[in-house]
Amino acid sequence: RIVAGRIPVLVGVTDTAFAETIRLAERAARFGAEAVVLSTPYYFPAGQTELFRYFGEVVRLCPLPVMLYNIPSLTKVAIELPTLQRLAESPAILGVKDSSGDQDYFRQLIGLKQQRPDWSILVGPEHLTAWAVRLGGDGGVNGGANIFPELFSALYSAARGNEDVTVSQIQDVVNELQGIYEVGKYASRFIKATKCAVSLRGICLDRLAEPFNHFMPPERQRVAEIIAKVETSLAELKVQ
Amino acid sequence: RIVAGRIPVLVGVTDTAFAETIRLAERAARFGAEAVVLSTPYYFPAGQTELFRYFGEVVRLCPLPVMLYNIPSLTKVAIELPTLQRLAESPAILGVKDSSGDQDYFRQLIGLKQQRPDWSILVGPEHLTAWAVRLGGDGGVNGGANIFPELFSALYSAARGNEDVTVSQIQDVVNELQGIYEVGKYASRFIKATKCAVSLRGICLDRLAEPFNHFMPPERQRVAEIIAKVETSLAELKVQ
Repeated sequence: RIVAGRIPVLVGVTDTAFAETIRLAERAARFGAEAVVLSTPYYFPAGQTELFRYFGEVVRLCPLPVMLYNIPSLTKVAIELPTLQRLAESPAILGVKDSSGDQDYFRQLIGLKQQRPDWSILVGPEHLTAWAVRLGGDGGVNGGANIFPELFSALYSAARGNEDVTVSQIQDVVNELQGIYEVGKYASRFIKATKCAVSLRGICLDRLAEPFNHFMPPERQRVAEIIAKVETSLAELKVQ
Repeated sequence: RIVAGRIPVLVGVTDTAFAETIRLAERAARFGAEAVVLSTPYYFPAGQTELFRYFGEVVRLCPLPVMLYNIPSLTKVAIELPTLQRLAESPAILGVKDSSGDQDYFRQLIGLKQQRPDWSILVGPEHLTAWAVRLGGDGGVNGGANIFPELFSALYSAARGNEDVTVSQIQDVVNELQGIYEVGKYASRFIKATKCAVSLRGICLDRLAEPFNHFMPPERQRVAEIIAKVETSLAELKVQ
């Protein structure tokens, strides 16, 4: 309703139960999503042969096109290149988002565009977005874009050569923002920092789904200081 | 329906989504389960403070008593002892099943029985069941009991001192069975070996939920040889 067709909305449907993934995809389709995002089941790790068959089965039953999502730090298993080469034969697959942070792997993903020029190859870790776009990648799915959309929009444009501001000037601000991900402990600090930051920016409440706490005042204070600095830097850059 | 009240049936309700866990527990209650089994959410790993609050919230909304399940190899995070000591104040928690394989941790679990003599402390890895029972544990939740229930029933009785056959005679057969878990690759080999073995015993089909393949003929052959040996050993032991 908010997007109103201006940009495609993609919905995550990763689940450890096959039937739940299909149900989520059907619901996403009913609500008007453009495509779904799918990673591997993440309780018992599967082998690559199993993943190839699994993705094929989801695609066969899924009412929407599928963007694959590689995030081995949380799913325990990567979607390896030979598996993707075989999956590239499926027209309903739209591309890959890679959150591994493995630059060699990402480089090989871009190689898949020879086989599938229509695929979108997107990068997760936001400090790599400019690098990824300059290498031939299609952009980033960056947590920080929830906090400062104009910053990442400018980063993308600059990496494509369409900005007066240089990539390195924008990258400096992106790097400044990365400090928020060093606040707190555990893998969940990334979502806590993001949620804390968007609440500081007045976008939504600082509340996380169970079982996660939000940051306590000392952590919130550290995030607030970084956000204030980024706001100043952004104002100086004059990007919109 | 099959159990018909003869023994308690416990149903696993672990999920990464809090609402799904509660929904599963409500369904389990409606279908006549005695209790639910709950591990930690297993996508983003949570901290111990978060887990303490999380388990408390589930217990508060769950219509059935809760058995906690520690399996850090798959959930990424252990339920640590201090967390369990605090949770022991909740009467609706029935005990802990531990699949960590960490014998020091299990020994400390048994210590919790001073605080909660009514708690059941159960062990997952079946080669540790006799050790666990002799130490004061309440038994095992052993995958191999799906294949040879009489073997594990005898192991438990012997460890409690209620069998003519000695623990070490039975343990030898249990150790023989462990060979099936060395067949295949990946963490999923445990469920594959179990499913293969129960199908060889005529209990059910050798079919796994997506995304998992069953064992191929060469692996099945290796499991079959081990199962045949265990059958012979069991017949010689004359346990029922």
